[in-house]
Amino acid sequence: MADRILMLILDGIGDRAVEELEGRTPLQSAETPNLDHFAEIGENGLLDTIAPGIRPGSDTGHLALLGYDPYEVYSGRGPFEAAGVGISLGSEDVAFRCNFATLKDGKVVDRRAGRIKEGTKELAEAVREIELGVDFDFQHTIEHRGVLVLKGEGLGGGVSDVDTHGSEKGYAKAISLDDSKENRKTAELLNRFTEKSIEVLSEHPVNEQREREGKPPANIILPRGGGTVPEMEDLKSKDGLDAAAISGITLVQGVCALAGMDIIEVQGATGGLDTDPDAIVEAAINALDEYEFVLVNIKGFDISGHDGLPFQKIEFIEKVDSSLEPLKELEDTYVAITGDHSTPVTIKDHSGDPLPLTIFGREIRNDDVKEFDERACGKGGLNRIRGKDLLNILKDLADRTEKFGA
Amino acid sequence: MADRILMLILDGIGDRAVEELEGRTPLQSAETPNLDHFAEIGENGLLDTIAPGIRPGSDTGHLALLGYDPYEVYSGRGPFEAAGVGISLGSEDVAFRCNFATLKDGKVVDRRAGRIKEGTKELAEAVREIELGVDFDFQHTIEHRGVLVLKGEGLGGGVSDVDTHGSEKGYAKAISLDDSKENRKTAELLNRFTEKSIEVLSEHPVNEQREREGKPPANIILPRGGGTVPEMEDLKSKDGLDAAAISGITLVQGVCALAGMDIIEVQGATGGLDTDPDAIVEAAINALDEYEFVLVNIKGFDISGHDGLPFQKIEFIEKVDSSLEPLKELEDTYVAITGDHSTPVTIKDHSGDPLPLTIFGREIRNDDVKEFDERACGKGGLNRIRGKDLLNILKDLADRTEKFGA
Repeated sequence: MADRILMLILDGIGDRAVEELEGRTPLQSAETPNLDHFAEIGENGLLDTIAPGIRPGSDTGHLALLGYDPYEVYSGRGPFEAAGVGISLGSEDVAFRCNFATLKDGKVVDRRAGRIKEGTKELAEAVREIELGVDFDFQHTIEHRGVLVLKGEGLGGGVSDVDTHGSEKGYAKAISLDDSKENRKTAELLNRFTEKSIEVLSEHPVNEQREREGKPPANIILPRGGGTVPEMEDLKSKDGLDAAAISGITLVQGVCALAGMDIIEVQGATGGLDTDPDAIVEAAINALDEYEFVLVNIKGFDISGHDGLPFQKIEFIEKVDSSLEPLKELEDTYVAITGDHSTPVTIKDHSGDPLPLTIFGREIRNDDVKEFDERACGKGGLNRIRGKDLLNILKDLADRTEKFGA
Repeated sequence: MADRILMLILDGIGDRAVEELEGRTPLQSAETPNLDHFAEIGENGLLDTIAPGIRPGSDTGHLALLGYDPYEVYSGRGPFEAAGVGISLGSEDVAFRCNFATLKDGKVVDRRAGRIKEGTKELAEAVREIELGVDFDFQHTIEHRGVLVLKGEGLGGGVSDVDTHGSEKGYAKAISLDDSKENRKTAELLNRFTEKSIEVLSEHPVNEQREREGKPPANIILPRGGGTVPEMEDLKSKDGLDAAAISGITLVQGVCALAGMDIIEVQGATGGLDTDPDAIVEAAINALDEYEFVLVNIKGFDISGHDGLPFQKIEFIEKVDSSLEPLKELEDTYVAITGDHSTPVTIKDHSGDPLPLTIFGREIRNDDVKEFDERACGKGGLNRIRGKDLLNILKDLADRTEKFGA
């Protein structure tokens, strides 16, 4: 019988030599009896998600881990965000991430409109009434964030951002990134959408109320990260796998949804440091009864990395480690534990440093590694592999692979 | 002076942690003083024949080891089988593997016609008399097996099998795998050939005699594994090597023949566990006097793997190991010892698990590895490489490579 496959992605787990940690990484510094146990019974190595020295995003990183070539299928973050909030996407649609922002005297004075929480439902409704001349959808997601999907034929994804990513600056006019008719049409629609968003939002009662309360009004929508919906063969047809994903973050949910995976919602699972890893691990083990392949993303490591907090990262690593205990009881399953990218506390951003990788399961060839970290795994039997090869390796171990040739 | 190159392919040597062997592989469990000696004096690593997690066939695996891209040149097993039995192939021919089988009341009741041994020469002669409307060749190979080559312009290799691979079922009508005129023409010819094979074989005296003896008649030919003859640059022009191959199996002989290598027949060398490895090693050493590059395939490991017999695999490993003693006396030669794929006794089929690899020769950079097995070689100086790079590495060591650039 073919075995099941669990891919546990510790988002941003990889790090570098940190001075405050006497040259160790947070993962080397943390007490991780469970991760070390899995390394000891497993086969270990290093993983370059995309290629050595390439800094993956969470979207391109997960695409690679699912066996897609991000250079082929990735055209921007927008469509993955849109898929992640459950917007149904057509193959010719173009999607954008959006912020509600505050415009004053022609300048964007707050890119997040005071991290607006209330009234966004009404504001989004008003935005949907805009007359644009083509079909579109606009959905609020969380806080000041939303997604815009332009629908119809003859649109391109290659346009610059309206959002200039800096406060105290004006917003930008979207321009086509090349000479194509499709991109020029999208740029024109996007600029019209932005101007009309100012019209419908400026006089909106929600914003009048905010101004009375001294809060920054959400009086403009700033789109960015545009892209056409990628043509991705789903995992069922590409790999023959019934697959599901557990993740607290929209972007990863979107990548997995566009790969045709079911998205499992877990009570208490968030994209933050406050997430409930016990609940996540329990849900993952239950999901393996129903699905042949389950991907789990736990995000907190990445947050401590972005914030440059080594001791917070260590604490979160130890919290997650203690939740992994039940994985010891898994049967008929090959488990891979790795990350989608490093997020060194020294860099405060994603980096291309390779990730530690452990694979364990019934017939795994053991090696001498006894600890799960960047240094120990580098001496393991898997040596150094690429993200795009990981799912193939797991499918082969689980006896779910067809022979190529005779 | 440039050195010579010997590539020794232990077919199916790689394995997994086997419970009966206390978690070791057969190769880890076997006593292999000679292989261990070569690992100790050599440089070691792991080899992914095609790519990590990809399960190679013997055909696609050997193509990769000879430096070809199997995704480019491989279109099916037929042409390699045909080349392996010495049929001369044109660049537009389409070749199939065939079985003599037994048809009763429209059903294939024995796919191997009782593993027919006698009378096949006469039956093949009768088949060659079929009027098909295009030139073709049909040759019996061993037991119930043969090959069919359709000749002429405008033929395609993309057709489904007539052989349904199951007993007690009817045979299938070949259909074109796409809409092309070439494949449709081939499918039509193949179906005509199958029907006519029934006509000429049913009344044949050999079969009448078999029926009198209560043996299943060989009264239909079932083609499968069709493919066009691949366009392969031969090793002389691709690598500048005068090359020869020693193998007990037709399929590997065919790959090597299409690569332009001479095929050396060795008395006592078979594709089975009964092969004579002493004779093979002696023939290989002699061949190195005449050829710059010699590939040797020894198959028995693969058979024990397919049959799921770890102790038989160990025994064959030890038998071959003791025959490798004379390789210690080789001079002016770089030797690589590896496999074309793993055949774990737990899987009973090929797998994508990487192979141990040892290279030794005069100026090799030595490492700390002292044993030839999957675990020990994983810590070697070669790290983890791809099959397509092996011949380049050997050519470079042997000083047979041109500089790229200035």
